[in-house]
Amino acid sequence: MAASEHPRMSDVAARAGVSLSTVSRALRGASGVAPEVRARVERAAAEMGYVVSRGASSLVTGLTGRIAVIVPFLQPWFFGVAMAGIHSHLRSVGTDMVVYEVGDTRALTDYLRTLPLRRNVDAVIAVSLRPGQDDLDQLDAIGLPIVFCSHRVTGFPSVFIDEAGAAEGATRHLLNLGHTRIAYVQAQDDTGFPWHSRLRLEGYRRAVERIGAEPVVVTGRPGVEGGALAAAELLSRDDIPTAVLTESDDLALGVLRALRRSRLAVPEVMSVVGFDDQESAALFDLTTVAQPVHRLGAEAGRLASGVLDGSVSGDTHVELPTGLVIRGTTAAPRRGPGLTG
Amino acid sequence: MAASEHPRMSDVAARAGVSLSTVSRALRGASGVAPEVRARVERAAAEMGYVVSRGASSLVTGLTGRIAVIVPFLQPWFFGVAMAGIHSHLRSVGTDMVVYEVGDTRALTDYLRTLPLRRNVDAVIAVSLRPGQDDLDQLDAIGLPIVFCSHRVTGFPSVFIDEAGAAEGATRHLLNLGHTRIAYVQAQDDTGFPWHSRLRLEGYRRAVERIGAEPVVVTGRPGVEGGALAAAELLSRDDIPTAVLTESDDLALGVLRALRRSRLAVPEVMSVVGFDDQESAALFDLTTVAQPVHRLGAEAGRLASGVLDGSVSGDTHVELPTGLVIRGTTAAPRRGPGLTG
Repeated sequence: MAASEHPRMSDVAARAGVSLSTVSRALRGASGVAPEVRARVERAAAEMGYVVSRGASSLVTGLTGRIAVIVPFLQPWFFGVAMAGIHSHLRSVGTDMVVYEVGDTRALTDYLRTLPLRRNVDAVIAVSLRPGQDDLDQLDAIGLPIVFCSHRVTGFPSVFIDEAGAAEGATRHLLNLGHTRIAYVQAQDDTGFPWHSRLRLEGYRRAVERIGAEPVVVTGRPGVEGGALAAAELLSRDDIPTAVLTESDDLALGVLRALRRSRLAVPEVMSVVGFDDQESAALFDLTTVAQPVHRLGAEAGRLASGVLDGSVSGDTHVELPTGLVIRGTTAAPRRGPGLTG
Repeated sequence: MAASEHPRMSDVAARAGVSLSTVSRALRGASGVAPEVRARVERAAAEMGYVVSRGASSLVTGLTGRIAVIVPFLQPWFFGVAMAGIHSHLRSVGTDMVVYEVGDTRALTDYLRTLPLRRNVDAVIAVSLRPGQDDLDQLDAIGLPIVFCSHRVTGFPSVFIDEAGAAEGATRHLLNLGHTRIAYVQAQDDTGFPWHSRLRLEGYRRAVERIGAEPVVVTGRPGVEGGALAAAELLSRDDIPTAVLTESDDLALGVLRALRRSRLAVPEVMSVVGFDDQESAALFDLTTVAQPVHRLGAEAGRLASGVLDGSVSGDTHVELPTGLVIRGTTAAPRRGPGLTG
């Protein structure tokens, strides 16, 4: 070490010729510090052997400089993109992102119950997760804010899409093409998480019931395999639908695979619409509802920062727009009975 | 608060009738604590209003209880799966995972340079990243260990696959099928990261040169679009290859799309082999080299824990096996000249 055994932040500020807060911002990697100033501060800190003590700074501000992001799974496309969005904001304000995977409702509750005891984050962003009211009350009681990403939760800052409206719009598109027998495929698993089934299903129902058609709902496992099984169920019905809306692109890709294996042409025999617009959707030329997942994440990051600086409250609800991306898996229904008629 | 204004861990231990270390492990969420014991400790802690102070415990152990995971990008499949693997281990030992996305070599260096100043993690796991020697020396000098996931780095604990061997094996499979004109497609972008091109390319070269064939190497952008462009280049050659090995599944999917759009049958006109075995590979019936990505992550997590408890050193190198998954995009070449002959 150069200057002293234990240099303080003020020593670094003096050496670099900047204010205390500039040193703090520069060393935390926060934005709003000119590159040359940041370099000067870092050089001064390095020369003096100065070490930022998170512990010390948290004693002053009461903050840890970290936000927890909890996701049901790390692997699926959706969560990678959402985390990239969250990270893009948190990095810009110098906040660290601690990631927890809580694979079912029990793990979620376990995590939230130990969180107050650990006190190692300033706020929590829950992505596509909806804790129980007991857990929310407990977080509230100890003053640990929670922000919801991809869920609208009354009384909490949240960013979301109009799930029901988007599903209703996609269904209406199929109706407008001339389809009258339209099925809906949703997924259920053992995690206990509700996903978005309820709201998307509601939108689908609204649209088909408005024209007096009968809703046809098939519930399967999540993912591509689940979609393939759901397609088998649809293809074994007396009255095969001419179009299907699925709760996710993964389900839609499974439906497409089952149809292809049966040598049934898409969209001639059946139109297929997904929900997500993940990368594979374009590859498979899948018509789908596009969600702004990266923006959902970035907005959730901003809400979390805002809660901490007091600019965001439980009434802050941000709805982001979706769009129907029309590709090659949808068309007007063929006239004529049966699969190959 | 029930028992006292500031209950200590020993108060919780006494109330729950367990040892201090059991309280510590239970509240950190570490494994090896029976569920009923954990519940008892949590109940005692909650009743007494006990709060684990990370700051206090780090003053004793010198550890923060956190490990940083740095990835070039959060979004792609590979990193989600690798993080899930890392998380599965870190959760089992009660260590938090702080995630940083460093999108190019400059961001990587910036991050590593401020890391010692922040002192907010006990170790770093670098996934598919290779910092420069200067940065490694600096981390070493301040005693912050780094573990490499999906890269073999001399002198550092690392877990990896035999990149060259796997590519050589895949190429040999194509040679054994009877192909003699085999191309290799690799990707390059502006991030400055070397990815795995060099070693995989080396393996491909070894295999084709052994039979005296001429290597045909096409370099494009990463991802599906890059693969489609590379395919266009291959299809415009005088001497069109009958098989192609790509550096990643994404590139292979782009090649498949370009061939399908040109109405060229796979594998009749061209065999295609990917590298990764991501989820879409099965969907597209793509022959590919399977990497054990989740295991790479879990093993990297174990190495990081091991470095901290002294059981792992810079000589600890773990190689995990790969496998060639033969699906529908590879077959013996058709006899006859030209694309449609």
